[in-house]
Amino acid sequence: MPAVRYELIKTCKQSGARLGKLHTPHGTFDTPMFMPVGTQGTVKGISPEELKEMGAGVILSNTYHLYLRPGHELVKEAGGLHKFMNWDRGILTDSGGFQVFSLSKLRKISEEGVHFSSHLDGSKHFLSPERVMEIENALGADIIMAFDECTPYPSSYEYTKDSANRTARWAERCLESHKNTDKQSLFGIVQGGMYADLRQMSARDIVSLGFDGYAIGGLSVGEPGPLMYEMLEATVPCLPDDKVRYLMGVGSPDYLIEGSIRGIDMFDCVLPTRIGRNGTAMTSMGRVIVRDARYAKDFSPIDPECDCYACKNYTRAYIRHLVKAGEMFGLRLVTIHNIYFLLNLMKSIRQAIINDRLLDFKVEFFEKYGL
Amino acid sequence: MPAVRYELIKTCKQSGARLGKLHTPHGTFDTPMFMPVGTQGTVKGISPEELKEMGAGVILSNTYHLYLRPGHELVKEAGGLHKFMNWDRGILTDSGGFQVFSLSKLRKISEEGVHFSSHLDGSKHFLSPERVMEIENALGADIIMAFDECTPYPSSYEYTKDSANRTARWAERCLESHKNTDKQSLFGIVQGGMYADLRQMSARDIVSLGFDGYAIGGLSVGEPGPLMYEMLEATVPCLPDDKVRYLMGVGSPDYLIEGSIRGIDMFDCVLPTRIGRNGTAMTSMGRVIVRDARYAKDFSPIDPECDCYACKNYTRAYIRHLVKAGEMFGLRLVTIHNIYFLLNLMKSIRQAIINDRLLDFKVEFFEKYGL
Repeated sequence: MPAVRYELIKTCKQSGARLGKLHTPHGTFDTPMFMPVGTQGTVKGISPEELKEMGAGVILSNTYHLYLRPGHELVKEAGGLHKFMNWDRGILTDSGGFQVFSLSKLRKISEEGVHFSSHLDGSKHFLSPERVMEIENALGADIIMAFDECTPYPSSYEYTKDSANRTARWAERCLESHKNTDKQSLFGIVQGGMYADLRQMSARDIVSLGFDGYAIGGLSVGEPGPLMYEMLEATVPCLPDDKVRYLMGVGSPDYLIEGSIRGIDMFDCVLPTRIGRNGTAMTSMGRVIVRDARYAKDFSPIDPECDCYACKNYTRAYIRHLVKAGEMFGLRLVTIHNIYFLLNLMKSIRQAIINDRLLDFKVEFFEKYGL
Repeated sequence: MPAVRYELIKTCKQSGARLGKLHTPHGTFDTPMFMPVGTQGTVKGISPEELKEMGAGVILSNTYHLYLRPGHELVKEAGGLHKFMNWDRGILTDSGGFQVFSLSKLRKISEEGVHFSSHLDGSKHFLSPERVMEIENALGADIIMAFDECTPYPSSYEYTKDSANRTARWAERCLESHKNTDKQSLFGIVQGGMYADLRQMSARDIVSLGFDGYAIGGLSVGEPGPLMYEMLEATVPCLPDDKVRYLMGVGSPDYLIEGSIRGIDMFDCVLPTRIGRNGTAMTSMGRVIVRDARYAKDFSPIDPECDCYACKNYTRAYIRHLVKAGEMFGLRLVTIHNIYFLLNLMKSIRQAIINDRLLDFKVEFFEKYGL
């Protein structure tokens, strides 16, 4: 029995979206779900208790970052990432592939793996499928991701094809070297860039290897939204119904809804934390840049329709003051609001699936949000 | 009846320290007490709920900072500082005197008041006793401080005397212009530098005006500890027993104990928040610089004897990782610990007064803390 299992509860008759449950060694969580990102073993500025109060189930942490600092061996010695960071619900670690290609310099890809320099101190490192499994096994997340190459956008057909084929060969090596299969589920990653036939090829290759769940990587990398939807529509039918589907690095409200409609069950994104730290809030009426002068004497909450901790207790004027004054608590409040907003949006999506009206919900939400 | 009243419960037979209660419009709090500092209307990084959970009663906020940003009129429009910052226990606002003299440039003192430039944008401002009362009345704290000059250390006898006399004349003007006496208590401030006779002169002058409480200002400004104790011993006997006594800007563990022994009831200091943000913790065994390499694999809490949120849930290794990685949550955890440590120290001091053994407690504490 795999460590993490997906249970399909129902399909939205209007949209085809899936309502399900993800059973993990650290609890069962409803899907479609949004996973807040805790890059360095902490969701920036937020406590585990606050995350739980908001209803977060699975959070994501970054293998690349934790490998470089504080080091996976240290985390293992601490009793694993759950214990290290005091989080007793689900954790997913990515494979480091995306960061190796986006953050580090002087990387060199070979069949064996990737040589790269740390973005922190320039030190030299090598990651291979086997090494990444060793690291992710040490970190001990419930869900671990196979090592892949996230092809840049745009990339040529030939490069994308070669890369997707290598990602498939790496995926097989990941499966072979993954230990702890009873406690950690390994997910495969479909690549294939912006080419529908390569997406389908990659999906078939990865699915044929047999993973506990499937991720779609290499999307939301700069391409227009409709192209992403096209790739999803090409890929998802190639994935088995009885396994969970995870769209990596995607978390804007419109993408969460469009992704769910296309059969995605899991999402993650730094968006709510990153824009929160800039004092920008996502609200039921679209984005609110709290630090704008127009909110100086606005004694209403960030989002009058929200009942998060920030909106129940603080005004835009107060939060603006904190953000302008460089006070940490201001960033914390906006971040809490943004994460809550997305977790709540997922709840609304799940409810719309139950009621077989996700397409109607999308129209209503987009109109109000200004999309 | 004054807005804030002091009730003397008992005196420590061994040390002379006072156990009491401070009755304020926002609750009754035990003394001797430590007040965490929320300079800009927030205790840096900490939520009001966290402060309450730690047992904080009165917090301090800075008139100078709030006057410059976001402006006292805005805070008044928001319903006052309590509502603005979501804090329903006690608040004390200082008078801005200390910051005008320590932060701003180009200040010019006259009998009328002080002209100065904002440390934020260089804009010109004028504060007088009347203006400060207007600002503090707008902010609406339970305890407001008279406008004074905090004489620098060292200062000549003549300058200190002239300054203390002016502070007394300003104190009278504060009393005359203070509104909201039913909701806000005005405290006078004793100055007099490092001259015992000037301290006594200042204390007699200020006490003769009749305030709801008395503060001792201008100490812990760089002078050696024994000199501060000498000044306290010269001043405190001149203060009435039935009013609360507040030693301004003092908050290191030794000063809290020594001050209590000398009859002080209230303390405030930025120390726990400021060193917390540098990753330095106060513990029962002295200071711990959490970011030190020696704690990289230390899976024990900051202070094994502490039961604060940080110590109950996180290791030195984890907090060090967060601090090194520049993660806000690390600073939050150390700050929570430090504030808790001082609030808990005050609890121990009060218990030692109840047991008539504060001098014994001091010896025990100092030995363990390494003082």
